Amino acid sequence: MRTRVELGQAVQMTTSEAPARIGVTGLAVMGSNLARNLARHGFRVAVHNRSTARTKALIAEHGHEGDFVPAETLEELVASLQTPRQIIIMVKAGAPTDAVIDELVPLLEPGDMVIDGGNAHYADTRRREAALREAGLHFVGTGISGGEEGALNGPSIMPGGSKESYQHLGPVLEAIAAKVDGVPCCVHVGPDGAGHFVKMVHNGIEYADMQLIAEAYDLLHRVGGQTPAQIADVFRGWNTGDLESYLVEITAEVLGHTDPDTGAALVDVIADEAEQKGTGRWTVQEALELGVPVTGIAEAVFARSLSGRVDQRRAVREAFGPSDVPSRPDQSLVEDVRQALYASKVVAYAQGFDQMRAASAEYGWDLDLGAMATIWRGGCIIRARFLDRIREAYDKNPELASLLVDDYFRDAVASAEEAWRRVVVKAVSAGVPAPGFVSALAYYDGLRSERLPASLVQGLRDFFGAHTYRRTDRAGSFHTLWSGDRSQVDA
Amino acid sequence: MRTRVELGQAVQMTTSEAPARIGVTGLAVMGSNLARNLARHGFRVAVHNRSTARTKALIAEHGHEGDFVPAETLEELVASLQTPRQIIIMVKAGAPTDAVIDELVPLLEPGDMVIDGGNAHYADTRRREAALREAGLHFVGTGISGGEEGALNGPSIMPGGSKESYQHLGPVLEAIAAKVDGVPCCVHVGPDGAGHFVKMVHNGIEYADMQLIAEAYDLLHRVGGQTPAQIADVFRGWNTGDLESYLVEITAEVLGHTDPDTGAALVDVIADEAEQKGTGRWTVQEALELGVPVTGIAEAVFARSLSGRVDQRRAVREAFGPSDVPSRPDQSLVEDVRQALYASKVVAYAQGFDQMRAASAEYGWDLDLGAMATIWRGGCIIRARFLDRIREAYDKNPELASLLVDDYFRDAVASAEEAWRRVVVKAVSAGVPAPGFVSALAYYDGLRSERLPASLVQGLRDFFGAHTYRRTDRAGSFHTLWSGDRSQVDA
Repeated sequence: MRTRVELGQAVQMTTSEAPARIGVTGLAVMGSNLARNLARHGFRVAVHNRSTARTKALIAEHGHEGDFVPAETLEELVASLQTPRQIIIMVKAGAPTDAVIDELVPLLEPGDMVIDGGNAHYADTRRREAALREAGLHFVGTGISGGEEGALNGPSIMPGGSKESYQHLGPVLEAIAAKVDGVPCCVHVGPDGAGHFVKMVHNGIEYADMQLIAEAYDLLHRVGGQTPAQIADVFRGWNTGDLESYLVEITAEVLGHTDPDTGAALVDVIADEAEQKGTGRWTVQEALELGVPVTGIAEAVFARSLSGRVDQRRAVREAFGPSDVPSRPDQSLVEDVRQALYASKVVAYAQGFDQMRAASAEYGWDLDLGAMATIWRGGCIIRARFLDRIREAYDKNPELASLLVDDYFRDAVASAEEAWRRVVVKAVSAGVPAPGFVSALAYYDGLRSERLPASLVQGLRDFFGAHTYRRTDRAGSFHTLWSGDRSQVDA
Repeated sequence: MRTRVELGQAVQMTTSEAPARIGVTGLAVMGSNLARNLARHGFRVAVHNRSTARTKALIAEHGHEGDFVPAETLEELVASLQTPRQIIIMVKAGAPTDAVIDELVPLLEPGDMVIDGGNAHYADTRRREAALREAGLHFVGTGISGGEEGALNGPSIMPGGSKESYQHLGPVLEAIAAKVDGVPCCVHVGPDGAGHFVKMVHNGIEYADMQLIAEAYDLLHRVGGQTPAQIADVFRGWNTGDLESYLVEITAEVLGHTDPDTGAALVDVIADEAEQKGTGRWTVQEALELGVPVTGIAEAVFARSLSGRVDQRRAVREAFGPSDVPSRPDQSLVEDVRQALYASKVVAYAQGFDQMRAASAEYGWDLDLGAMATIWRGGCIIRARFLDRIREAYDKNPELASLLVDDYFRDAVASAEEAWRRVVVKAVSAGVPAPGFVSALAYYDGLRSERLPASLVQGLRDFFGAHTYRRTDRAGSFHTLWSGDRSQVDA
C-alpha cells in the first residue's frame, strides 16, 4: 500500500512508514484540537478534512506538536491507518455526519471502528450503530465535553458502542481525557447510544446548574441589593466549599468583569436573552418519554425560552408595571442562598441520574452511575467537587432509589431545608422569579408527602373518561358508575 | 350500484335506496357513539367494523335511533356512500390507523374525504394528509373531545385538513357538535395537522387545569384542615363564579363521594398514583421544539410521573420523615386559594395559547385563537365560563402578546396577586408541594421582570463555549477573550 500526500509540509509516506494509530476527519476547532491532543500524547494521528485548507492550516500551525499524517481524501485517510482502523468523525450532527459515514463505510473492513465525537442525538446513534453492526463495523457514539479547551487539554469522554471496540479505543481515549486524582475522565459508558445519551443528560444538568446559579445571583442582586462585583466575591467564597465547581468559579469571573466600553459590570450590559443549542431540550423530551420528572432541567430550558420572548416580556411589563421591589441589605441572605443553591442542585442531579437509570433499564445499557459521576469530575462543564460525593453514594449503593436518600445528601438537604424555604419565601414575596429553586423544593416536598392529590386526579379521570383507579386497600382496577347509581365496579 | 348486507336487523339495500351521507369505520365506544350522534341528527350513516359483531350489536341496540347502513366490508362501506365520500376512521392511533387508511385508499376516488377522529399525533396527521393529497384525496385529522359522553351527545370537534373538505364536512360536524348559546363547538381549525395539534394542546391544558385543582384541594386539606366533603362544598361554591367549569363541577362530585366499601371519602381510598396516556407529554415535547415555555403543563405531567414513582417516594419519606405539618383552620385560606387557582389557570391557558400561536406561525396554519376558545366552551373536558373571556380577548386583539395583557385577565391576575403569593408562601412553609402554583407565579414574575439573570447565563456560555452574547446598548454579537486579555471582540 502506497499513499502519497502532497499537502503543505506533509511528510511523504512510503510503505516503510508506520501506519497511523488513529484518524480524525473534520478539522474545525473541536476536531483540530482533538487531533492535536492525540498527537501531543504520542499517537500518530491521520488527519483529514473535506476542504484541504483546514488540513494544511493544522499542519502548518501545529505540525510540530506531534506525529500527524495528513490525508487529502477519505481513501487516503483509511489507507494510512493500522487495522482495525479507528476513525473519529468530528463534523456537525445530523445529515453531515450521515454523509461522512456513508462515504466512509465502503472503504472499511470488518472490525474497523467509526467514532462519532459530535453532539448526535442518541437515537441517531442507535440507528447508526445498528446499521454499521450489520456491516461488521463498530460504531462508537462518543460524548465529548469540555468545549475547545477540553478537546485540546483533556475532555470528559463518554464512549458508547461495543465492549470490543473499547478494548482498542479505551487506551487512546483514556490517554487524552482529563485526569482527576490520576483517574481518567473516560469510561466505556455502555452499548450503542449510551454515550450520547449520557452526554445529553450531562448537558441537561448543565442547564439546570446554570439556571440555579443565575437565580442565586438574581436574588442576591435584587433582594439583597448587592452589586455584581460583591456577588463575584460571594461566589469566589462559595468556590472554596461544597459548591466548588467550574461553573461557580467562572461565575465569579463573569460577575467580576467590567465592560471596557461602559465601565459597568459586563453582566449588566449583556442582553438578558439566553440562547440554547438543543441538548437541554432533548433531555427534557426524552425524560418525558421515559416518565422521569426532570423539573429542574425543564424549568431551566423554559427560563431560557422565556427570556428570549422580548416582545411578550415588554407587553407584560407594560401591563403590570415592574415587579421589582426595593432591595435591602440582608445579612443572612447570602448563607441562605448558598444552602438553597446547594439543595436545589442536589435535586437537579438526582433527577438527571434518575433519567440515566431509567434509560439504562429501558435500553438494557447496564449503566454504572457512579462511573458517570467519576468521568464528569474533570474536563467537562459541570465538573465539581460534589461529583465525588455522588460517586461515593453509588459505590455504597448502586441501587440507590434517589441521590436524595444517600446519607451524605440527605444530611446536606435536611440541614439546608429551612434556609431553602426562607429563600423561596423571600423570592416569592419580592416577585423575583426563581423557577429552579421553587420547582426543586416542590419536587422534594412531592417525594416526601405521605399522600399526594394525584388521587383526586385519578378520580377526575375516572369521572370524565372511565380511566379507572386503583385502591389503597386492595389490588385491582375500579370504576365508579358516576352517571349511574355511583356504585363501584371492577374494571 | 347494488350492495346487499346481511347483518342482524340490517335493511336490504337496493339501487333505489339513497346512499349514506357519511360513513364510520371502527365501532368501539367512541365510534359507535359518534355514529349514533350522526344518525340521531338525521344523517344516514354507514357503519363498519373489522369484526362484524360490533356492527351487529350497534344495529341491534341502537338501530331504531336513526338511519344506519351496516357494511360488512370496507368495500361495502365505500359503495354505500354518496360522493364525494366522507368516511370517519375511529380506530386506535398509530399503526391501526395507518392500516385502515392503506386499505381504504385504493377503494376511493379523487375528492373523497378520509376523516381521522382518533387521537393521532399531529405529525402523523401531516404525513398522512400529504400522502393522501398526492392521491387526490382529502385527509382531515380531527380532534374530538368530550369522551364517550361527548361523542354521543355533542363533542367539541377540531377538524384540520383542506378548506374544501370543510365545505362538505362542516354542516355535518357542526350539527353533531356541542352547542353553546346556539353556536356549534366546531370550526375549521386550519390545514393538515392543525386540528390534531389544537386537540393536543387542549389536552395539555387539561393536565395543567387538573393539577392546579388538585393542588388547591391539597392545600385546603393539608394546610386548612378541611375534609374532602367540606372541600366539595368549596368547589361547589366556586362553580358559581369565575371558576365555573366542568372540571370544578366534577371535582365537587368526586370529593363529595363516599366509598361504599369503607365509608371513607373515595378520594382518600384511591391510590395516589396518577396515570397518563401521552397527549400531555406530547404537548410539552412540542412546546420545547417550538421554544414556548409551558411550565404549567410540564409541571402537571411531571407531577403525575412523580406520583407513580412509589418506591422512590417511600425511600425519600423514610429518609426524611413526612413533611406534613399540623393543619389548622384558616379562614382566609379558601378565598386566597380560589384567587391563586384562578391566576395560575390564566397562566396555564396563556401558555397553551402561546403554543398554538407559535405552531400556527411555524406551520402557516393561520389559527384563529378566539375561535379555538369558542369551540372549547362546550363538549370538551376544559369547557368553562372563562373561555368566553378568552374569546373576547382575541376578538378585541387577535395579535395579543399574551392572554395576561388583555384588560380583563390583567385585572383578574393583578387583583389575585397578593392572595396568590400568600398561598404559595403557605405551601412552601408547610412543605405541601404546589408545583403548578409556584411555577405559574415564577412565570408571571419572569415575564414582568425588567431584567432577567439570563444575561449571566449568556456570559457563562460565552466563557466556556465562546457562544457569544449581545449587548443592550448596540447591535451585533460579541465575545470576550476570557482566556486572553479579556478584551471584547466582534463575533
